[in-house]
Formats: sequence, structure tokens, C-alpha cells
Amino acid sequence: MITINEALQSVLSQRQSYGTEKVKLSGATGRFLAEDIFTDLDAPPFDRVMMDGVAIRLGDLDNPIKPSYIIQGIQAAGTPQMELLDADHCLEVMTGAILPIGADTIIPYEEIETTDGNAHIQLEKAAKRFVHYRGSDSKKGQKIIPKGKLITAADIGILATVGKADVSVAKLPSVAIISTGDELVEVDQTPLPHQIRKSNVYTLWSAIVKEGILSKMYHINDDKDALVKTLSDLMDAYDVLLLSGGVSKGKFDHIPDVLSDLGVHKLFHRVAQRPGKPFWFGHHPEKGTKVFAYPGNPVSTYVNHLFYFQQWLHASLGTPLQPEVKTLGEKIPGNPNLSRFVSVSIDAKTGRAYPFSHNGSGDLFSLSKTDGFLLLPQRDGDFLEGEQLEFLCIR
Amino acid sequence: MITINEALQSVLSQRQSYGTEKVKLSGATGRFLAEDIFTDLDAPPFDRVMMDGVAIRLGDLDNPIKPSYIIQGIQAAGTPQMELLDADHCLEVMTGAILPIGADTIIPYEEIETTDGNAHIQLEKAAKRFVHYRGSDSKKGQKIIPKGKLITAADIGILATVGKADVSVAKLPSVAIISTGDELVEVDQTPLPHQIRKSNVYTLWSAIVKEGILSKMYHINDDKDALVKTLSDLMDAYDVLLLSGGVSKGKFDHIPDVLSDLGVHKLFHRVAQRPGKPFWFGHHPEKGTKVFAYPGNPVSTYVNHLFYFQQWLHASLGTPLQPEVKTLGEKIPGNPNLSRFVSVSIDAKTGRAYPFSHNGSGDLFSLSKTDGFLLLPQRDGDFLEGEQLEFLCIR
Repeated sequence: MITINEALQSVLSQRQSYGTEKVKLSGATGRFLAEDIFTDLDAPPFDRVMMDGVAIRLGDLDNPIKPSYIIQGIQAAGTPQMELLDADHCLEVMTGAILPIGADTIIPYEEIETTDGNAHIQLEKAAKRFVHYRGSDSKKGQKIIPKGKLITAADIGILATVGKADVSVAKLPSVAIISTGDELVEVDQTPLPHQIRKSNVYTLWSAIVKEGILSKMYHINDDKDALVKTLSDLMDAYDVLLLSGGVSKGKFDHIPDVLSDLGVHKLFHRVAQRPGKPFWFGHHPEKGTKVFAYPGNPVSTYVNHLFYFQQWLHASLGTPLQPEVKTLGEKIPGNPNLSRFVSVSIDAKTGRAYPFSHNGSGDLFSLSKTDGFLLLPQRDGDFLEGEQLEFLCIR
Repeated sequence: MITINEALQSVLSQRQSYGTEKVKLSGATGRFLAEDIFTDLDAPPFDRVMMDGVAIRLGDLDNPIKPSYIIQGIQAAGTPQMELLDADHCLEVMTGAILPIGADTIIPYEEIETTDGNAHIQLEKAAKRFVHYRGSDSKKGQKIIPKGKLITAADIGILATVGKADVSVAKLPSVAIISTGDELVEVDQTPLPHQIRKSNVYTLWSAIVKEGILSKMYHINDDKDALVKTLSDLMDAYDVLLLSGGVSKGKFDHIPDVLSDLGVHKLFHRVAQRPGKPFWFGHHPEKGTKVFAYPGNPVSTYVNHLFYFQQWLHASLGTPLQPEVKTLGEKIPGNPNLSRFVSVSIDAKTGRAYPFSHNGSGDLFSLSKTDGFLLLPQRDGDFLEGEQLEFLCIR
């Protein structure tokens, strides 16, 4: 059986770009940048006043300040640049204003008294100029956000500053989410004694909405002909199929056979991991469709999706997902045969992860109480208190 | 000056409920539950077959297994419960199926050979029954998600399982985001030499979209009459106003005066923190409007918003936000006068936070490279390597 790392590399080998598109700035949050972003102006764009006070022409900082200056006017933030007409004059200036022409030093209000249109200065020498010089943070034309970055709220502010009203972002793949299994009924139905309601497709739908993708849900019964017909159609219409159920060893687990009949190239089936071992992954060489066929157990489906699909999506559209790490709070015995996703809760004070006991991979309800999963790689030795391990957050 | 903890308690004292509403399950992700959620059935809802194989009637586990059973049929998952007609008969059963009436034990396929409609069993005694009994995970009527919880993808699956096609959630407050400052121009304009483009309002808009709130943006010039008129109208129309700029000590920083004239009750102005010291917070006693007036610097605005507004929103709509903690990677000197939000990057291997140097609170571009902010409370002693500190994530 393939290891979790081999499975992940296989999934990542199928990363694919779906092209780019322009979106309005207001719709760009959470998308992946498809262009490098440069400053279009120096930052700050002008010699910027840093204190409320008066601007004077001093020349050398060692020059003595005159005891009194004639106030010529006010240079407010957002008003065109004024000019200091004479070395005996000053201009009142506000933080954020452009430094007036002919001025070079700000004296803060704290050091000044004003009477009859004159500013009387109680300093003999200036300590600092209090000017934030044009281009001192960054020069025009400097790269400030690289292509491939996931756009955060902070990036939105930066894109606004440099005038990107429209942004080029990676196009998202179209995704179909497909439940299989004759025991499944709709959410608004009351199950008969041998039935249960669908749930995995809703979890997947919600997880994908958080990535900005509006997917569509389908259901196919455990009938080989129906599976062949519908899956073939869906592969024509969608870039990615996410299936849940039908990949174990039962008499009606037709998915692997049907996918093979439809020309989907299997990259692997079954991974040395718990939960989620029967995960099947492949792609259609001509149609380009990627097929993630998850086992039917709710926790198995969700953990496989979090681990494999998310990393595939980020690698496809932008830059690889940087895994989060957490410190293990207590010893867990090693397992040389399997990698394990262990449901944990995070201690609020220490940030450490503690295993959270539940009833096995079918126990959906425990997922609401868990903070996420620690990934314990397959190995002989124990996992020790204080060890750093990869963490999949589900909040 | 008020401390950061006093300021936070003051903000949280203004938490408020905005009522509840029913939404479709597909629109419930990221909302706060306004009802307790209970199981509507036992889990599992029936005695569930755990292995593919044959079901027999054994009685006591110590009873010997017959060498051969007549195969009476197949009990598949999702088909109505069948009945084992005789102790010499067996039924083939699939994982997830209901246990047939009259059967009590599953023998996995691995232990069986089938010929001519008979199952020949190579075991003398059964080790386990391989039945997941009805209600063994949870009984009908058990509370599984408490009111107030933020709804995650995992919760969506649980809500589907228990048949919540419509969910009662907390209504969201309506929010107006208001920029002030004559130096600001629109994103699609080229600034004159003394102007800059708006950016804070876009960052705030994007941060709030992530909370599920579609806010609206407004701009008001540094003109007292315009501020009075527009802010009064906006307080009638919105539950929350987020302002950016105009709260410092300059000649045109009218916001505190105007809010006071409009009857907004100031809870505090200025907090012993860096950046973001001039933060102003208040509420209108009659209209109920909450006013978060942030300083104009981009980093100041954003960090105040992340810290104060997010905690206010979670406390108002559901359960208080559980702060994340990170381990400090290197020593930072203490400061007895100020709490500090320190921009950090997180080491991918160790998960430790390292201070990220930038040009001060105005340096918007640095926000794209940072992973978040560590909160260093005001104190004399150094912050030591390995210490746990509160972390605000910006990714």
C-alpha cells in the first residue's frame, strides 16, 4: 500500500492551472493573484508632514531658529502644495499634508505659541525635521505582492493603494460533489429504518465554499449503469469530481470499476493511513478531469478532503499551502504501518494539542467538538510530549 | 490613558444581539447557531452491519458455527430489513446495511467460501459479532451542537444528518464603513501629488466579508457640517459604524467633537497601545449604534479592527472568540507603559513567532508579508523566548 507522502505527491503531480480572469477588487478576497503587483508611485508619494505644527525654512539643522515667524496660511492634508514665500514666514501644517515648497523642517505645536498671526517658537535649535521623505518606504515600480499569493484583507488594502480596481486572479476549477449509496435520503426527508440522511456532500460543499468555489451536488444510486452514464456526463461538464462512498470492498462498491471503465487513470487506491484508507484518486487523460473518490465514512471523507484536496487546490491555483504545526501535549505510541490523523483539541492557554477520544471514523458528531487533526506519520518510535506535528484546522 | 484590557472590556460591554433568522443549510456556513441542535434519531439509527460477509443466527458467541449455511439472499445497504428464516440459513450482508431480523452475528467474507448457494465457513467460533448497535454512539434527543457555536463545514454535515434543512442563526448587524480625509481619492483615480488612494475602507470591507457581512462604504470630507449631516443619517440606517481617520490631534480631526455633538456616548478615546493609540469607541444610547473610530494609519486601523471588532462581533452573536496563542521565538524587551501588537512571521517548522521589522504603523505594504500580530501586554519584564502569547492571525 502507498504511504501518505507518496499519495500526496501523486495528488500534487496532478496540479493544474485553469487560466486567469479579471475580477473587481471587492470580489478578490480569498482568490489567488495571477499577476505580480508593483507600486505605481513612490511610498510615501510626497514629502509627508509627520507632526501637526508649523513648517519653516531652516537650511542646516544646526542653524538657529528665529524667535518668531509670520503665519502665512494652513497646509492641510489633501490640499495642493503651498509655497513658503519667505524665510521669515511659516505655514501651519497637518499630519499627512504635503511639505510646502521652500519649507524643510516642522516645529510641533507643543513648542509654539501663536499670537496675532505670528508663531513664537520656544526652541533655539530643531532636533528633527519631522518629514517622511518621498520614496523612503519604497520606490515606484517595486514588487510588493508576488503572483500566486492568496489575497487577504491586508492585500486588498494594498491593491487599493496601488490603484488595482480590477485584479487578475487564477480561475477556479468547476467542482461536482457526488454522493453514492442507496441508503442515503435527502436532508428534509425522514429516513426509513434502514436509511440515513446525506451529510458528507454538505460538509464538502461547505468546505469548498470557504475556498470561493460554488460547487453542485449530485446523487447516484449503487447501480452500475447509472454510475457509468452520470459520471461520464459529469466528467464532460466539470474539472473536478469529488465522490463520497462506494470505494470499499463490498459487493456494491462499484466506483473503482466504473471509473476504470470510463477511462479514468487510477493513480492510487488505498493509502496507509487511518482514517480514510480506501481513498481512490485518478484523472482522465483526455478530459483532464481529476477524481477524488473518498470513503463514505464522514470523518474519513472530511480528513482526506482537508489534506489532499486543499493542498492540490492551492498548488494548482497559486503557491503551495504552508502547513500549520502544533505542539503535542501528551505522548502517543508510534505506529510503523500507518500514518494517522488524530482528532485533537487545542488548549487555549498553551496552544498544545491533546488527542480527543471519539467512537471511530464513523462518529460524525465528534467533529463539532474537535479543533482539528494532528498528522502522525508512520514510524516505530513514540510521539513525545512537546513534539511539533502538522495540524489540519477545521474551524 | 486606558489600558488595552480596560478598552476591550468596555467594547465587550456593548455586545448586543440583533435577533435571529432562519437560513437554508447551504447558507449557514460561518454563521452563529441560534438554537441548540439535538439528534432526531439514535446513532446509528439501526443495528448496523460493520463488515461485508454473511449474517447468521448464533445465539451465544460461545456456540459453535455450523460448517455450512444456505445463502438465502443479499441484504444490501439501503434496502429494507430482511428476515433470516432459519438457523441453517445465512444472508449476505454489506457494510452499512441493517442487520437482518433473526440474525445476530456477521462472519466476514475473508472466513468464507461460497459454492452452489452455500456459504462454507472456515471458523469454529466467532470472535466478534461485527454489529454496530443502534444508539451506541448517541441516543435520540441528545444535544450535539450548542446554541452560539460558529457553524463550520463539519457542523453543516451534522446539521444535514439530523435533518436541519433550515437552521436558526443569529442575525448579523448592518455595518457602514466610512473613510474621512480630504487627501483620499478613489482606487481607479490617479492621485495628485498631495493625495493618496483610499485603502483602509477596502481592508475593513474585506475583513468583514469574511465574517459574512456585506457592508457598505462611504466617504466624508474633513468638513464639520458634512460630517454631522452624514454621520447622523448613517446612525439611523446602520447598527455599526466603522470610521477610519480623523481621531488624532490635528486641526481637522473633527470626529470626536462631531460624534459628541450627535449624542454618541464616548466610552474611551486613546488606548495605551502601539500601534492604534488614538482609537475612539462609543455608542448612541437611543439609536443603539456602535461607533468604532479607528486612526487613519493602515496598520493601526487593521489591528484595532482585528482585536476589538472581531471580539465584539463574536461575543454579540454567539460565543466569545477563543484567542489563538503562539510561542515567541526570541526575546523582546518589556514596556511598562504600552501594550504592543508586534508584526510577526511564523516559522513553518516550529510554529514559533518571530518579530518582523517594518517601517512603523504607516507601512501598509509590510502587512502582505506578515503572518499576524503578537499581543505583548504592558509590563516591565522582558518577553522571553518560549513564552506563550496571544496571536491575531491575518491570513
